[in-house]
Amino acid sequence: MSAPSPNVNRQYVLVQRPKGPLSESDFAYREGPVPEPGPGEVLTRTLYLSIDPANRAWMSPVRTYTDPVQPGGVMHGFTLGEVVRSSAPGYEPGDLVEGMNGWQDYRALPAAALHKVARRKPLSIILSGLGVTAKTAYFGLLEIGRPQPGETVVVSAAAGATGSVAGQIARIHGCRVVGIAGTDDKCRWLTRDLGFDAAINYKTERVPEALTAACPSGIDVYFDNVGGDILEACLFRMNDRGRVVCCGAVSQYDTGAPGSGPRGVPGLLVVKRLRMEGFIVMDHYGRRAEAENDLARWIADGQLRIQEDILDGLDQAPGALVGVLHGDNTGKRLVRVAPGIA
Amino acid sequence: MSAPSPNVNRQYVLVQRPKGPLSESDFAYREGPVPEPGPGEVLTRTLYLSIDPANRAWMSPVRTYTDPVQPGGVMHGFTLGEVVRSSAPGYEPGDLVEGMNGWQDYRALPAAALHKVARRKPLSIILSGLGVTAKTAYFGLLEIGRPQPGETVVVSAAAGATGSVAGQIARIHGCRVVGIAGTDDKCRWLTRDLGFDAAINYKTERVPEALTAACPSGIDVYFDNVGGDILEACLFRMNDRGRVVCCGAVSQYDTGAPGSGPRGVPGLLVVKRLRMEGFIVMDHYGRRAEAENDLARWIADGQLRIQEDILDGLDQAPGALVGVLHGDNTGKRLVRVAPGIA
Repeated sequence: MSAPSPNVNRQYVLVQRPKGPLSESDFAYREGPVPEPGPGEVLTRTLYLSIDPANRAWMSPVRTYTDPVQPGGVMHGFTLGEVVRSSAPGYEPGDLVEGMNGWQDYRALPAAALHKVARRKPLSIILSGLGVTAKTAYFGLLEIGRPQPGETVVVSAAAGATGSVAGQIARIHGCRVVGIAGTDDKCRWLTRDLGFDAAINYKTERVPEALTAACPSGIDVYFDNVGGDILEACLFRMNDRGRVVCCGAVSQYDTGAPGSGPRGVPGLLVVKRLRMEGFIVMDHYGRRAEAENDLARWIADGQLRIQEDILDGLDQAPGALVGVLHGDNTGKRLVRVAPGIA
Repeated sequence: MSAPSPNVNRQYVLVQRPKGPLSESDFAYREGPVPEPGPGEVLTRTLYLSIDPANRAWMSPVRTYTDPVQPGGVMHGFTLGEVVRSSAPGYEPGDLVEGMNGWQDYRALPAAALHKVARRKPLSIILSGLGVTAKTAYFGLLEIGRPQPGETVVVSAAAGATGSVAGQIARIHGCRVVGIAGTDDKCRWLTRDLGFDAAINYKTERVPEALTAACPSGIDVYFDNVGGDILEACLFRMNDRGRVVCCGAVSQYDTGAPGSGPRGVPGLLVVKRLRMEGFIVMDHYGRRAEAENDLARWIADGQLRIQEDILDGLDQAPGALVGVLHGDNTGKRLVRVAPGIA
């Protein structure tokens, strides 16, 4: 892989759709020309690339909320970029934008596909503490989960970028918070550093029994990032009028075909009057500024801790995503694409 | 079984919890004394007994929204009763009440457990067109499903007491309505008599393909009375922001243990932003009068057709419930407990 250059667009493309677990060999490196922005378009250089479990879902041939990644096409990903050239009013070189440049140095996009953001220190906080995953946690918990003070909130993939923020927002709202994660280190981090009331290691503990012990008053809100057996175990422990925030299904992404659904659907939903609801963060972007303001305030006053897990260099992207799907990360995984950026 | 008498309380009790499909031999007839109403209580005589698939769920040892029927105890059931003696203010002999007398002639209940209703012609309409199943259809469709004119609404167990009303209310609200039922006669009744736009016989047709054909614009609201494979088939055809009204799970009631849940949970809920929500009609009884007024008006002006399926005599109750679980009924199944009642 060559060094970054203003004249070369380094890219990772999807070679083939993974049939089972994702492998680094499903991606190939190539170099292309730096695109020119057409009328109304903005050319940006990728500074940081967000690495998220949902990226894996985009590789399925089924349309999710975004078009699927096509074999031979550049891998999709959320990015923080800097404007290089602009043919769109309101965008000047040096401006920072959130967008979806994907796994490459440069992309020209219509201004409507970009969102201008203020410069912050460190820059990475724009994608970690204030970015898509943090806003997903914010809207998912508050708009879909609607936790009340004193209620019990369970979060799965709790040491991940979304889960760790969702759990802390629940704590800020006065809830009892129980996290589920895959290592003892992550569990310790949740309870010691992030203020979770309890944490369950789903790889070494029996989740149903551990949930019963950790949630003596039952579960009012389950923020589900994983689906599968953990979702099933939570459903059986939900209180009447409980809410399941369907945020993701990591347990299903990296397999050939999703298995059967959790027992208790729909029977438990009926007798307990449960609500299970999916959402896409972009649907709530009408209140984006409010979310970012709240998140920034909580970070500034120390109520919300953001853990970043930054890898250096675009060539780290394939391994970073494979790792995220195995739970290698704690907190928000980013790839610093532009070297030397703070 | 003896004839009705003012001095004998004829009853059917549950002999044992059914382990698999319900059988008439799970019930036993016995006679007991007519109870005396205690302070604040009202003694009523059962006129009509409502026979509903949900009765089967109450026989499971797991608490639903009501206490489970205990072996040796009188079988539970919604009833229309007439006040015989009252020790509660506001209740006089001859008053009509909705309540849960269960499968017996007489029960003394606290006034708070009863709901006084106006006399109507025929009396049975109080339990059929205006009763629990009709109000379940009303609140489930309108409060949970929230259909908009032009949307496509699919209803399962569509020829049943709840489904047939839910589908017609959807039609009244300007929706395209597709019913799923178990015989060609029922399907014809739905489309010819009740104004459904299409009907699917799930016993003879391939439901996934039939749904695709009957719902060219996808499904916006699925009113689920059955769970299982039909729920799964609908989930895969839901439109973005679709709503699944979890009203019942008939496919699961009459078995030993519920099977696995539908594929697509939670993955499809996330990418399509679906909401699946259970409810219990009693939770909405703050607006009971509004529901009954709307239902009565639609019945009176011919927009809502109510099919009654009335069996005569309390001794019909065990067979009536076994039959309802096999889909023998079209419309609302009732047992006329008091002979000669209109």
